[in-house]
Amino acid sequence: MKTSFLSEIGRRTEEPPISWLMSLRLSHPRVISLAAGFTDQETLPHTETLALLEDIFHDIPRAKAALQYGSTQGDLELRDLTTRRIHTADAGKSAKKLPEVYSPGRMILSHGSQQSLYLVCEALCDPGDIVLVEDPTYFVFLAIAQSRGIDCRGIPLTSEGPDLASLEAKLEGLKRTGEIKRVKMLYLVSYFQNPSSITASLEKKAAAMKLVKKYERAAGHPIFVLEDAAYRELRFSGQDVPSLLTVPGAADRLIYSGTFSKPFASGIRVGFSLLPEPLLTTCLRLKGNHDFGTSHILQQILSRAISTGVYDKHLELLHDRYRAKAAVMGTALVEHMPASCQWPEPHGGLYFWVSLPETTQAGRTSPFFKAALKADVFYVPGELCYADDPTREKPHHEMRVSFGGASIGDIAEGVKRLGAVAKKMCR
Amino acid sequence: MKTSFLSEIGRRTEEPPISWLMSLRLSHPRVISLAAGFTDQETLPHTETLALLEDIFHDIPRAKAALQYGSTQGDLELRDLTTRRIHTADAGKSAKKLPEVYSPGRMILSHGSQQSLYLVCEALCDPGDIVLVEDPTYFVFLAIAQSRGIDCRGIPLTSEGPDLASLEAKLEGLKRTGEIKRVKMLYLVSYFQNPSSITASLEKKAAAMKLVKKYERAAGHPIFVLEDAAYRELRFSGQDVPSLLTVPGAADRLIYSGTFSKPFASGIRVGFSLLPEPLLTTCLRLKGNHDFGTSHILQQILSRAISTGVYDKHLELLHDRYRAKAAVMGTALVEHMPASCQWPEPHGGLYFWVSLPETTQAGRTSPFFKAALKADVFYVPGELCYADDPTREKPHHEMRVSFGGASIGDIAEGVKRLGAVAKKMCR
Repeated sequence: MKTSFLSEIGRRTEEPPISWLMSLRLSHPRVISLAAGFTDQETLPHTETLALLEDIFHDIPRAKAALQYGSTQGDLELRDLTTRRIHTADAGKSAKKLPEVYSPGRMILSHGSQQSLYLVCEALCDPGDIVLVEDPTYFVFLAIAQSRGIDCRGIPLTSEGPDLASLEAKLEGLKRTGEIKRVKMLYLVSYFQNPSSITASLEKKAAAMKLVKKYERAAGHPIFVLEDAAYRELRFSGQDVPSLLTVPGAADRLIYSGTFSKPFASGIRVGFSLLPEPLLTTCLRLKGNHDFGTSHILQQILSRAISTGVYDKHLELLHDRYRAKAAVMGTALVEHMPASCQWPEPHGGLYFWVSLPETTQAGRTSPFFKAALKADVFYVPGELCYADDPTREKPHHEMRVSFGGASIGDIAEGVKRLGAVAKKMCR
Repeated sequence: MKTSFLSEIGRRTEEPPISWLMSLRLSHPRVISLAAGFTDQETLPHTETLALLEDIFHDIPRAKAALQYGSTQGDLELRDLTTRRIHTADAGKSAKKLPEVYSPGRMILSHGSQQSLYLVCEALCDPGDIVLVEDPTYFVFLAIAQSRGIDCRGIPLTSEGPDLASLEAKLEGLKRTGEIKRVKMLYLVSYFQNPSSITASLEKKAAAMKLVKKYERAAGHPIFVLEDAAYRELRFSGQDVPSLLTVPGAADRLIYSGTFSKPFASGIRVGFSLLPEPLLTTCLRLKGNHDFGTSHILQQILSRAISTGVYDKHLELLHDRYRAKAAVMGTALVEHMPASCQWPEPHGGLYFWVSLPETTQAGRTSPFFKAALKADVFYVPGELCYADDPTREKPHHEMRVSFGGASIGDIAEGVKRLGAVAKKMCR
């Protein structure tokens, strides 16, 4: 296929791994997918959503508003509810007057939080610019970076968040080579990180932010931190961790993004971000050109869900459900995986991040992956979650296995199949 | 505000005129807006939409599908229904087996047709590339072009579509200067064009396409035609015109886009495009990174609306409504505007395109616009609908006035106010 006449970005953009994973699913109909980041099918709030819709549509002015264009920035009511939620989570209690950093005027509602990530990258990065990411990180973010010609550099993760010594060493290295001038952002998936399920501590992420800021002088410009809190509301055990929004002085360097799709219903795609200037204005202009605003009816459903308490009630149900599914998966992993395999226990989110012995390759072209597929089970090869960082080797011995979309029976059976493959392959 | 660290596109992207128009509205609450391209408020199908939603949500597997992620390309059922609709409109009758050019596999469902326009520009054009547009054209398309650094060149419109002699002269000129190598696309809003309300004849648009193709050898690459049929289903008098999809051999150069938002409910943002390779694959990859798929519940509402006949029934109602509103506006224009003003009679869409005498400036900084605002009425200054084409002067004596969103009373009163201003200003 001739493509030389496409734009630079058009020529560069590769097939995203998610398409490959979806086509695998279609070509192997009996397969148990532990790959997809789908949300739990059984608990999808269909009764609740219908009730919300009936409420909205019986109130005719509200119904008409839902069916009319909204604004590019998004419904003020939903922005207000959303910023209040974030503040309440951060402060541990609700407040009458929100601090400026939580102002609805700083928020853009987007078509899923994926769109927020895209807009920020588009507004901030040219080809050749550098974004620091976690090792491993969210693979669809890496796809945006690949498409836009952004160089990603990986920072190893500890059980509490990015490894500060490695981050400093990386920044020093970039300063030495002069590449620091291309560093625009640090991207952190700070809650139940996709794929590792690690939650960064406030201390760790605040220290990372402070460290990055120290290099602004060498960079000659601000270096932003994008805190992607997509999974924050999916905590099913332990205590919430405050976001970087609580760090004094962080606001002018921090982009905080999140979503309602995973915690409520992924078919209702509404995400959000809080942005400092000039990113706020720039992303708004870009969104004006992308779609001049997220579908208004979706925003109304969520406004209504939050203000009536339906959203929080559903969240409780979801937490119970994911806690149970995670327990089934954890038990099955212990039972079936060889003793040489390891994983951190997730306290939220949708994933287990399983490390095989380092000598066992589990990448997309590996005999391990093929054997798993033959045994009618598949997973996200961990290698897909590592940036193409020329300064380090990419690990190939990890797997992301999800308890989100699969049924309880399929989780147990899928892990059993995977365990049988692993026992054969991990020698 | 310092912006030097933003991306090239971030720095370049200007405030879109639509934001200015919306802020005018907010700062002048009593104003009658004949500017907005909003759809009619009274006929918004709230009862119908609720009934559709109840149907969907009482069918539990369907409800769950609506609440789960769909695919990046969009729901196959809706793509199938949509391609059939387009084919039926083009062929004048339905067919069991669709010709390949109408294949659902060639269609992407987008978050409003605006997103389709954005994806095509992103896939095809680098900064400095040239897109030929109509004089005047859809101003939000011009905003995409401005943002992405695309040079637009204007082709005058006749009452039947683009002026072929001017198009040929423009292409010859571009060939002479060597700029033809940067020409990527011709953008046509072919049905009730926004803003002029002109519908291009099949002959005229087919001839334009053929003419453009003649210059591919000089360009050294394909030159695409984007037929934006956003208003096609809003015809309230006369006969539909077949699209360029009916032209033999056109398929591999033609992008055909349209929307369900304006004909049904603008709060339910779903648009679509039929694309040739390699644009199809490229736009799909880009959309995967933008949002990995349009909200699924919106697609389900439209599938259901179309398959049950609710959509077509609503369309009839809408046609009656817009016919009546256009008649009120037409009568008011005749009654109140000075005899020196002219406009073509719209047969569909949402707009009258009013030309004042050429010496009367009606642009955004003109005394005319200010006087109108003082008289509590405003419109889209026609100058906003002209590309920044350095090869010709931009006209400033036109206005786009919409009968879409305003009530019948406001249409009559708004035009009366505008007429009073015009009588004072057109000397």
